[in-house]
Amino acid sequence: MNTVDLEKYSDLLAQNARKASKKIRTLSAETRSKVLARVAELLRASKPEILAANKLDTDAAQGKISDSMLDRLTLNDARIESMAKGAEEIAAFADPLNKVLEARELKNGIKISRVAVPIGSVFFIFESRPNVTIDGACLCFKAGNAVILRGGKESINSAKCLADIFRKALTENGVDEDAVQLVTESSHDLVSMLLQRNDCIDLVIPRGGERLIRAVVDQSKIPVIKHFNGICHVYVDKSADIAKAENILINAKTQRTGVCNAMECVLFDKALPSSDVKRLVEALTSRGVELFGNADAQKRLEGIANVTDIGDEANYHTEYLALKASVKFVENVEEAADHIEKYSSRHTEAVVSEDTSVQDYFVANVDSSSVMVNASTRFADGGEYSLGAEVGISTDKLHARGPMGVESLCTYKWVLRGEGQVRG
Amino acid sequence: MNTVDLEKYSDLLAQNARKASKKIRTLSAETRSKVLARVAELLRASKPEILAANKLDTDAAQGKISDSMLDRLTLNDARIESMAKGAEEIAAFADPLNKVLEARELKNGIKISRVAVPIGSVFFIFESRPNVTIDGACLCFKAGNAVILRGGKESINSAKCLADIFRKALTENGVDEDAVQLVTESSHDLVSMLLQRNDCIDLVIPRGGERLIRAVVDQSKIPVIKHFNGICHVYVDKSADIAKAENILINAKTQRTGVCNAMECVLFDKALPSSDVKRLVEALTSRGVELFGNADAQKRLEGIANVTDIGDEANYHTEYLALKASVKFVENVEEAADHIEKYSSRHTEAVVSEDTSVQDYFVANVDSSSVMVNASTRFADGGEYSLGAEVGISTDKLHARGPMGVESLCTYKWVLRGEGQVRG
Repeated sequence: MNTVDLEKYSDLLAQNARKASKKIRTLSAETRSKVLARVAELLRASKPEILAANKLDTDAAQGKISDSMLDRLTLNDARIESMAKGAEEIAAFADPLNKVLEARELKNGIKISRVAVPIGSVFFIFESRPNVTIDGACLCFKAGNAVILRGGKESINSAKCLADIFRKALTENGVDEDAVQLVTESSHDLVSMLLQRNDCIDLVIPRGGERLIRAVVDQSKIPVIKHFNGICHVYVDKSADIAKAENILINAKTQRTGVCNAMECVLFDKALPSSDVKRLVEALTSRGVELFGNADAQKRLEGIANVTDIGDEANYHTEYLALKASVKFVENVEEAADHIEKYSSRHTEAVVSEDTSVQDYFVANVDSSSVMVNASTRFADGGEYSLGAEVGISTDKLHARGPMGVESLCTYKWVLRGEGQVRG
Repeated sequence: MNTVDLEKYSDLLAQNARKASKKIRTLSAETRSKVLARVAELLRASKPEILAANKLDTDAAQGKISDSMLDRLTLNDARIESMAKGAEEIAAFADPLNKVLEARELKNGIKISRVAVPIGSVFFIFESRPNVTIDGACLCFKAGNAVILRGGKESINSAKCLADIFRKALTENGVDEDAVQLVTESSHDLVSMLLQRNDCIDLVIPRGGERLIRAVVDQSKIPVIKHFNGICHVYVDKSADIAKAENILINAKTQRTGVCNAMECVLFDKALPSSDVKRLVEALTSRGVELFGNADAQKRLEGIANVTDIGDEANYHTEYLALKASVKFVENVEEAADHIEKYSSRHTEAVVSEDTSVQDYFVANVDSSSVMVNASTRFADGGEYSLGAEVGISTDKLHARGPMGVESLCTYKWVLRGEGQVRG
């Protein structure tokens, strides 16, 4: 598309989203659930079409993207079934809308309440996993919001097939199909144009690599909720149960490495017995984890593990997303919290300690969206928190923090019911 | 100050705020309340100094600003007592921090909770009423946030005296006095520099004229919560109790005209008897309200009131902040809601109707931060909603909407307490 056409297209997407958001914000919970249930049915009934569309994407991507990317792009029967189940689960959630968040009677007799309402319309930018198309659409629609979906260009055929299924379910239920729109042009200019439309779009949620998210934040005139990255820490206190620490370190670092809630830095209490340190470090290195650290860490781990010099201390900010981890020795929980204050991305941090005063200090002084006591950082996830599917994880402090479920897609309004009262 | 000095000064303010925010975020509720109680004591004990400082401001302003501005700038015994009472009231509020917003046990035995914590540091920009210095500082500190206060330059001496009193109360209680900092340079460049410091400042709340707020929003790299203006509507339905409608229109338009929650446009149901319309219109015009409207309104009010042609329909967007109001006749509540959707600033709208289906339609379909049924728009205020003092009113949809009390100065963190659980 040329610039003029892109402008027309972005205007259409934006206007349609606003129009649809006005229509769907007052839909009953029943209608919204019926649409989601129908999405599940249609997904199951459309497996051949979905797999055919997905094959176009995976064939085109073959040899051009990594195996793990290709795996993320690939749909199969199980993954389609899991999307359908997800839609059903979201349909079954309690309705987040029209919930009375607080209510009381004022002295002048006015009945005041604060009631959950949709945000309006959401621009959801995500990467190449096609199932996010359905997750994102389900969550936004459940909360009464119109959504503009923009997935990775590798998954365009799959995403189009899935979005069409959702739109069919909307139409069949008499709902404006533009409640769910998919961007079918992969142009960055188009994204930029949409990011200017604060007249029609209320919220942007970008998911993906840090570069993408920074570009979105820099350009957007619409509020953005996001995390740039996940530089997650585990602090092992001298009071730690070493078996727990070992399990947690292994899980936090090696269970999945390419994810934002994986551990990127381990902080050891200097008072830990060296045999314990050895056991913990070897648990990581024996699983192929490469270590990076300052001079002190190199010295303390001499003969136990090879620690690559971290160079500038600022490299403690590194998000490896690989079988790599920074390591540092600290005096105590205070220094651990100070290190985290300086280097963390405020996503998720964990303390391993049997000492409640250490746990409490860590919980109070670590200013991250999730703080774990004797549990793996990997739990930072909407599904694990039983929020149902998550639309993203926020390291922002406003509106939503940490895993964002369907409630984070609502705002509220104040409703005052009087009998003619005026202000004195 | 020259640019280099401004840069140094803004850096100091920003760094101090971040440092102080780290120290005060874990203060006990008791300590925070003690500081606020001491602020109240010191305000009462320092009346002569406060009045002397204020006299410098009012003397300097004499003849340069309007009488109403001068009145806003002026402090007296009663206003100082009211500031002291405000501080005591905020001290007595339930603690908004460490509140468990939700808590449950996950299937794997992890205890998860969502706990209220401070946002961090707030840059609070306000106009010339000096008492806002104390209100703003009290609210931010109650919620465990450091604050940088930037008032109007006309009130600088008063604000400095008041901020010093707050800082004295902090120091006396062993708390970092930089929890409350006042910007003592009136430079716009300094404000611009501070608005770039998203490394040190978490939230900007600007209050004042639309131009100021737009300038802040345009420049800020920090999230801003605000309202640009208040284009508030009252819709009088054919089912209205006319006595209620009359009181509400008079109150909403004439009780105070320079405020954001005053009515700027009245919408009459075309089916209202003309005698009722006459009564309502004359209630306004007899109090000096000038009316503006389209051709239809002019025709319908012929012989009742002079209606100045509104020119372009887009002028229905006008915020008069004066004894002026737009007027329009609509078919029904649906058209009223459509007009509001198009022209409102999403601040506050009211419906006057005895018909519950009309009320319900209005409440559901008007997407404003506050919706009034048979009550004046003037009630949209933190004090009236019994939030205690308010730090501002938000027409944004994220984080906080409508009057913002102390809870809107908190965020939350997720705390997970386990016994070594790892993710499967």
